[in-house]
Amino acid sequence: MIFDPQWNTDAPVRVDIVGATGAVGREALEILAHPRFRSRVRVRALASERSAGSAIPFAEGSLTVHPLREDSFDPPAPNEPPPVAIFATDADVSRRFAGHALRAGATVIDNSSAFRLDPDVPLVVPEVNADRLRPRNAAQPRLIANPNCSAAILLVALDALRRAFGIRSVVVATYQAVSGAGIAAMDELVLQARQVIDGNAPQPRVFHEPCAFNVFSHDSAMCADSGLNGEEKKIIAEARKIWDDPALGITPTCVRVPVLRAHTQAVTVRLHHPATIDQVQNAYQNAPGVSLIDDRLANRFPTPLKAAHQDDVLVGRLRPDPAKPPDEHGRHTSFCLLACGDQLRKGAALNAIQIAQAANLIPA
Amino acid sequence: MIFDPQWNTDAPVRVDIVGATGAVGREALEILAHPRFRSRVRVRALASERSAGSAIPFAEGSLTVHPLREDSFDPPAPNEPPPVAIFATDADVSRRFAGHALRAGATVIDNSSAFRLDPDVPLVVPEVNADRLRPRNAAQPRLIANPNCSAAILLVALDALRRAFGIRSVVVATYQAVSGAGIAAMDELVLQARQVIDGNAPQPRVFHEPCAFNVFSHDSAMCADSGLNGEEKKIIAEARKIWDDPALGITPTCVRVPVLRAHTQAVTVRLHHPATIDQVQNAYQNAPGVSLIDDRLANRFPTPLKAAHQDDVLVGRLRPDPAKPPDEHGRHTSFCLLACGDQLRKGAALNAIQIAQAANLIPA
Repeated sequence: MIFDPQWNTDAPVRVDIVGATGAVGREALEILAHPRFRSRVRVRALASERSAGSAIPFAEGSLTVHPLREDSFDPPAPNEPPPVAIFATDADVSRRFAGHALRAGATVIDNSSAFRLDPDVPLVVPEVNADRLRPRNAAQPRLIANPNCSAAILLVALDALRRAFGIRSVVVATYQAVSGAGIAAMDELVLQARQVIDGNAPQPRVFHEPCAFNVFSHDSAMCADSGLNGEEKKIIAEARKIWDDPALGITPTCVRVPVLRAHTQAVTVRLHHPATIDQVQNAYQNAPGVSLIDDRLANRFPTPLKAAHQDDVLVGRLRPDPAKPPDEHGRHTSFCLLACGDQLRKGAALNAIQIAQAANLIPA
Repeated sequence: MIFDPQWNTDAPVRVDIVGATGAVGREALEILAHPRFRSRVRVRALASERSAGSAIPFAEGSLTVHPLREDSFDPPAPNEPPPVAIFATDADVSRRFAGHALRAGATVIDNSSAFRLDPDVPLVVPEVNADRLRPRNAAQPRLIANPNCSAAILLVALDALRRAFGIRSVVVATYQAVSGAGIAAMDELVLQARQVIDGNAPQPRVFHEPCAFNVFSHDSAMCADSGLNGEEKKIIAEARKIWDDPALGITPTCVRVPVLRAHTQAVTVRLHHPATIDQVQNAYQNAPGVSLIDDRLANRFPTPLKAAHQDDVLVGRLRPDPAKPPDEHGRHTSFCLLACGDQLRKGAALNAIQIAQAANLIPA
């Protein structure tokens, strides 16, 4: 049954959003409220017992939140297609409940880090490695991992260069929105900004440092040995897995900035094959999931405000690395760029839904 | 008279702060209000005709603002030491008035970009190249340039590594406070933050992009050919001049963040001689102008809030570049770090005053 558009039956596909009350869950609901999904997808909201019974906005109405329990993932009725469960939960919850969903027949697309590095689980950014969803000699995978937001945005931003010229190494500094730490972090940023403006001292709760009018090294756990934080380790490991390039050199520095949503990345990329700036710009024409904003005369480039609520990753400030002189043909092996992507969309909910689409589980 | 402590006379040295009403000028006044300068330095505030006659806070009292005119720099009385003029002005004003100050006998320390790349003008960060203030076979220079804020902070942060291991190349992404664009930019950030919190659209005036809850490529003029902005070009040219290393590879990406003061930099640095992480940490013990904040267990590192109003550049997150494996002795040739420095202090006013101190023009 591989490649069969499973949604192309009379019955709509059930899509369970697990963790529907969180920032990523709400974003998934907003995307699925689009009319093109309306008759084909039956959305169910699940969250912790605490939120169970409450109503959550969906399209013009609302959904009742179901409690997440081991028996939540009832098998569908005999004539129904198998359900899709999008887990917008933390790794512990995913580890605890994904197995139940799989046993009940669902395909699980997990946003957490729980299964990303499991060699049996495909880690997918559809624009980059959708082929992992369509193995030639195996059943279509039923557990698929959604990458870390920074990794997803970086790989979409760079994949056009990888395909055209090959990538040897990447240095990336991130400017990460607080939305990656959830709704409470977004509330904290607004609250602290108000406190500072009113002349009061900000009161950090979600983050270990004040977040308003400040930037700080990413709040994920530090590895005392390597000196890398969790976010940096994810970018390295996940980029290598998604690009299937275990020797890829990646040097990330992950930093939070007082932005509500959408991550920015300053990237320097070293190519296998030299290219002119024109060739690099051409490589981005028709790059899937990417919009170029690169107007030097107007000083107009990607910003997180422009990327917020957008599906595409914005790329701009394409330029040769000034530290490396060109060869005799005017070609460079190192380039710099700026990328912005909506952490909650391409970095999370949208990519999960695109995985379901690329796997023919829901309509494209 | 070279090396003579010219301030060590009975008469106090006159220090003219040109552009005293701007962000850098006010900072210079705040530093010079310290009691250690009180009996030795006679501060005079100069600004445009517009501000002339107004009072500007100084120590417990205030100074009257004098108009900046071609005849403002009267020669001192016969028994007075030659005055020092610290120009906290833009390049056009510096170009127009520095010559008058020099002809009147002043030593000029200029914060603008006007003279920085002039081969006859020393460009000085005292911790790095104070020797340029004490030429062996020439008169002490009377026009000294103060570097760009990002360049000054970067060079102080990296000089310990350069002295110990040599530096081959640097990749730096900046997180620059709005204070670099002056007081009006700081006011704009606070105003826009309030507008956004109150649900209104921000109204950009100083910057070409909204600055509250946003980040954007630096607002300096873009070079259409190279794709570099003015701030990036300054970092490259000034680092090469201050370190006297015309072949140094520098790859900067300059970005503004919604921070009021103090710049942050994510740096990857390639060394000439390999080093262990212990050797790198040791190199920073007693590094002049640097404070290490590098607590992996507590996730405590430099932030712009910690660096604001501080003299030292804060350095932390020292770690080997994860893209480059160590040699058989556990040594690395590439390291990463995070640096924060107060743009208005070490990046501008403080460095100018330190130049005057290093040149023995005012007391250290």
